[in-house]
Amino acid sequence: MYNLLTEMINKRKFVAVIGGGECSKEEAELAEAVGRKLAKQGAILVCGGLGGVMEAACKGASAEGGITIGILPGDNRQAANPYVQIPIVTGMGYARNVVVVKSAQAAIAIGGSYGTLSEISHALQSDIPVIGLNTWVLSKNAQQDNSIIPAQNPADAVDKALNLASR
Amino acid sequence: MYNLLTEMINKRKFVAVIGGGECSKEEAELAEAVGRKLAKQGAILVCGGLGGVMEAACKGASAEGGITIGILPGDNRQAANPYVQIPIVTGMGYARNVVVVKSAQAAIAIGGSYGTLSEISHALQSDIPVIGLNTWVLSKNAQQDNSIIPAQNPADAVDKALNLASR
Amino acid sequence: MYNLLTEMINKRKFVAVIGGGECSKEEAELAEAVGRKLAKQGAILVCGGLGGVMEAACKGASAEGGITIGILPGDNRQAANPYVQIPIVTGMGYARNVVVVKSAQAAIAIGGSYGTLSEISHALQSDIPVIGLNTWVLSKNAQQDNSIIPAQNPADAVDKALNLASR
Amino acid sequence: MYNLLTEMINKRKFVAVIGGGECSKEEAELAEAVGRKLAKQGAILVCGGLGGVMEAACKGASAEGGITIGILPGDNRQAANPYVQIPIVTGMGYARNVVVVKSAQAAIAIGGSYGTLSEISHALQSDIPVIGLNTWVLSKNAQQDNSIIPAQNPADAVDKALNLASR
Repeated sequence: MYNLLTEMINKRKFVAVIGGGECSKEEAELAEAVGRKLAKQGAILVCGGLGGVMEAACKGASAEGGITIGILPGDNRQAANPYVQIPIVTGMGYARNVVVVKSAQAAIAIGGSYGTLSEISHALQSDIPVIGLNTWVLSKNAQQDNSIIPAQNPADAVDKALNLASR
Repeated sequence: MYNLLTEMINKRKFVAVIGGGECSKEEAELAEAVGRKLAKQGAILVCGGLGGVMEAACKGASAEGGITIGILPGDNRQAANPYVQIPIVTGMGYARNVVVVKSAQAAIAIGGSYGTLSEISHALQSDIPVIGLNTWVLSKNAQQDNSIIPAQNPADAVDKALNLASR
Repeated sequence: MYNLLTEMINKRKFVAVIGGGECSKEEAELAEAVGRKLAKQGAILVCGGLGGVMEAACKGASAEGGITIGILPGDNRQAANPYVQIPIVTGMGYARNVVVVKSAQAAIAIGGSYGTLSEISHALQSDIPVIGLNTWVLSKNAQQDNSIIPAQNPADAVDKALNLASR
Repeated sequence: MYNLLTEMINKRKFVAVIGGGECSKEEAELAEAVGRKLAKQGAILVCGGLGGVMEAACKGASAEGGITIGILPGDNRQAANPYVQIPIVTGMGYARNVVVVKSAQAAIAIGGSYGTLSEISHALQSDIPVIGLNTWVLSKNAQQDNSIIPAQNPADAVDKALNLASR
């Protein structure tokens, strides 16, 4: 049994779901659907481990038996939402945002505020593809930056993330 | 003399200048003018310590006798541009972006790519005012986010940064 | 099956194995035995993800079907040893040592150099119990500090770690 | 005047003083004397920015007109002791210990608990010389490790630190 478990984990893709620690009902539904679909596809979910979009995504993934990793900003593993199976305790505050995206091969951004924007930025800086659902739109010098790849819906977001998952 | 120096440093405002490690000639000119003006106003310049906008700003500040702090991503203090007087060596890669903005009471963004965007995001997340010169424009849900305060020119950017410098 | 997997992960204890990236044959044997025993007891292994003691411990754990987490210092998930199932990519260099111990409820130190000593220190600073196998001995003011709990052998180390695993 | 200031800062050596946030009266006296002597020799003092040994060292350095840098663990620059002139705000908790020593070319350890030991370890790991005053003694495999260079008194500690200051 245990060997089976090990095998099941190996070779899976890691996808970050990033978004606000508080979120709208609509965003939570999107996140939960993304989590479900990621788990069904066998991907491992990485997130910041807290509430809102992070919790909804972990809830969805857990419902389908997926593995969920929460990279926590604080010192206390108990701060993880109840659907985080693997809490990583950084004690590094917002600097943990860097670790969330670097630990993934693609990221799906859902809504979100400036913390999410920092994760999007760190991902793009590290050449990690970012798929967006109702999230930030970037422009510079009056031209839109198209680095955030738009998705139509949760299933589309997961498909794009898994196709683009790097390395 | 030394006591005078100590007194001169105390009570100054700390302002971050953020922007690309490579930049256009125009951006370098803006950054150098910002650095000059910050030094003339007695502010201490904080930046990421490398080239491009960071170096131009430090060059400007140094020319006016200002103090320059470079928060370096790598392990080597020699990587600082020649105008950094106080190199802080983090060895933390892009996570040092968080430290650059948190160590300032206001930030001036000039041009920049995704690293700069991450610094803008971390600043806004930490309620540190951000003044923009030819930099990113943010929008969400088809509405522009006006958190980045636009400046007309370097002098205007410095005035706004010093007026808004928090805590 | 997947739900079973989720359940299998939940409620397990997290134990860090810390030690040198290069190590003696004896240390590697100790580490592998510790990894095996941790997996048999159902604990999740946390380590720095690289070679030496870390790799030997992951090898032992994997052989028994255990779950292994590697908190990597660099930017590249490929740098993980082949027995790491869950690579966490920090890009933060030695600052990741803090994350290795904070993510565990107890730590087992095997041999090791100054990096290991920093992990021992961070663990003790965070009230995470440290069990020692042939590792550092600390003293201050001519008195030995007994915070590192000595173990007789790998099985003893694992027993002590699991008994003391906090929170 | 300002140009003079810039020149005064350039080319100085950076020395970390590490020790407990709480300390004995004797340790505080050692730290203050170390701070004074560092300032007299023109060195820039780097520390963790808080109380105890850190504050005493900054107090001594300030009394002689020296420059003091405090690398703070939290999010608030106001947490710096009153003798810190240049607060660096990391928000990274104990991971800031890495930055304290990496930003220095030599470190002087005075007393201290596990946090100080982590700084000693990170310094030694990064080949930064450590001078000790009444601090930790390390041994491994029944042999004392002599990497911490003992000093007889504050003046001796500063002399050794400045002689060994690397890079």
